Amino acid sequence: MAVYTEVTDEALRAFLADYDLGGLLAFRGIAEGVENSNYALKTAGGDFILTLYEKRVDPEELPYFLGLMEHLAGRGLACPTPVRGRDGQALRHLAGRPAAICTFLPGIWPRRVRPEHCAPLGEALARLHAAGEGFPMVRPNALGPAGWAPLLERCRATGDGVQAGLVAQLDAALAAILARWPAKGALPTGQIHGDLFPDNVFFLDASDGRPRVSGLIDFYFACTDLLAYDIAVCLNAWCFEADGSFNVTRARSLLAAYQAVRPLTPGECNALPVLCRGAAIRFLLTRLYDWTATPPGALVTRKDPLEYLRKLRFFAAVEGSAGLGL
Amino acid sequence: MAVYTEVTDEALRAFLADYDLGGLLAFRGIAEGVENSNYALKTAGGDFILTLYEKRVDPEELPYFLGLMEHLAGRGLACPTPVRGRDGQALRHLAGRPAAICTFLPGIWPRRVRPEHCAPLGEALARLHAAGEGFPMVRPNALGPAGWAPLLERCRATGDGVQAGLVAQLDAALAAILARWPAKGALPTGQIHGDLFPDNVFFLDASDGRPRVSGLIDFYFACTDLLAYDIAVCLNAWCFEADGSFNVTRARSLLAAYQAVRPLTPGECNALPVLCRGAAIRFLLTRLYDWTATPPGALVTRKDPLEYLRKLRFFAAVEGSAGLGL
Repeated sequence: MAVYTEVTDEALRAFLADYDLGGLLAFRGIAEGVENSNYALKTAGGDFILTLYEKRVDPEELPYFLGLMEHLAGRGLACPTPVRGRDGQALRHLAGRPAAICTFLPGIWPRRVRPEHCAPLGEALARLHAAGEGFPMVRPNALGPAGWAPLLERCRATGDGVQAGLVAQLDAALAAILARWPAKGALPTGQIHGDLFPDNVFFLDASDGRPRVSGLIDFYFACTDLLAYDIAVCLNAWCFEADGSFNVTRARSLLAAYQAVRPLTPGECNALPVLCRGAAIRFLLTRLYDWTATPPGALVTRKDPLEYLRKLRFFAAVEGSAGLGL
Repeated sequence: MAVYTEVTDEALRAFLADYDLGGLLAFRGIAEGVENSNYALKTAGGDFILTLYEKRVDPEELPYFLGLMEHLAGRGLACPTPVRGRDGQALRHLAGRPAAICTFLPGIWPRRVRPEHCAPLGEALARLHAAGEGFPMVRPNALGPAGWAPLLERCRATGDGVQAGLVAQLDAALAAILARWPAKGALPTGQIHGDLFPDNVFFLDASDGRPRVSGLIDFYFACTDLLAYDIAVCLNAWCFEADGSFNVTRARSLLAAYQAVRPLTPGECNALPVLCRGAAIRFLLTRLYDWTATPPGALVTRKDPLEYLRKLRFFAAVEGSAGLGL
């Protein structure tokens, strides 16, 4: 469910009167996305997505997210472009929420990842990193290394209820990751997506039948951090089989296509295993927190945190970046 | 949430290969509707809705529903038109479910009903009834008078938990309704929608700024029953204020516009109050059953059954059909 806020038709019409989008033709809630309320909006001017930002998004951070999307789109990246109202503002209010209209992107996200998805993904990720250059705003990664210990604290009382001994394992894993984490300034930094899971990447088939990326969406975890950490997120999110095994063919495709656009530095290559461990513990901790804080049967589907414990163990056992397909 | 069944992109592509709709451009789950999984589908051929029929729909009844929509659309009613595959079949299978693609209808359903909605609604309902003539299939109303006593039985053990004394009140109300229900053959019968609530009626603004009906959707409660019962459903669903008061201005608009297309018989006029009581108890009973059978916090939003107890009391106290705006 991704419609938390209902919008009356009068409020919608009044809101659209501040734009040059032509007459309203359709307006339907979209079932995907868990953080915000998303509506498919069709006007005489085309297809758009209307997003109402719900309580998990800090309104003060919206100028960064919308500004980044506009910057990336202006540099040719296929991502949602915020649409400005007649007064030049893209960030507005509707139904008591901050709200914005963005362009609609064609494409379908892969419900089942295939190796052919991973090269286009790697290329798109590198293009995102290149397109982010010159964007002047900075957003620290709220779910980066400095955030993991506080997050683990919030799971301390309940975490062992998910699996006996889990909290002690995570204490040890987190200490090992933080001890190996790259020093500030040691690796290239820039604007990263931070959450480039399959449901945030749209594909269309090219004329040769092979998938190509038609759009990247959902920039609401984007931040300013190590570029290679974004690769580590993708290795976690795209390169494991349903049975938990690491598919090195997918990883090789992803990394080779990324490097064809932006070659990794030796420091990034060396750091990749610990970045992957960090990305694994990041998703493990947020899932664990949501798991223990969300009653069974609630509107939000809980995701299994232990999937990421298995990924964390895999990355901790990898001998150097060659084991990751580099 | 209205996506119960996930569809892989491979399965979707294979499914679409049986149609002449052109290349796949987008595929997104729709958050509206509670019975089935609905996806917005965009292809080179246009916009469509893909529906996967979930367990509350009997697959044997799908030929009636799809046949009725095709019949109505063929007679000029703005309703979803089933799209046939290359083999001529509209009802197919996808992801282990019966599935069909229908045309996309423009329009927005009114989140807040205004009096101006009710005349276009009444006219559209009468046009639906006229367009249904000649459709050869028959589907008894599973939620009609014969179904209410069994439904009340299923709520007997739990109903008083919603409000003390509720089951005894409903026993008395149901007996009074059934004693007054029109005899078989006494009133005009035909294909009815059966669930024409605001979220099933799309509107667009005409050039004069007044709303006109752009489409009627969700025919999965349609059946063969008293035409005037469909009016009674609409009087329940469209003509009460949020505070529970009956808005006779809306009812007058609805009834006058209906009668401009199909005048009611004297028998229908006389029967309208009891038909309204019947429609009220029908929604009261299904909501009561869902309320007591659904745990709080489940994926489906529970609707308050007592809203319909108040409507039932209003209709039971009405003196003749003049009190309804006739």
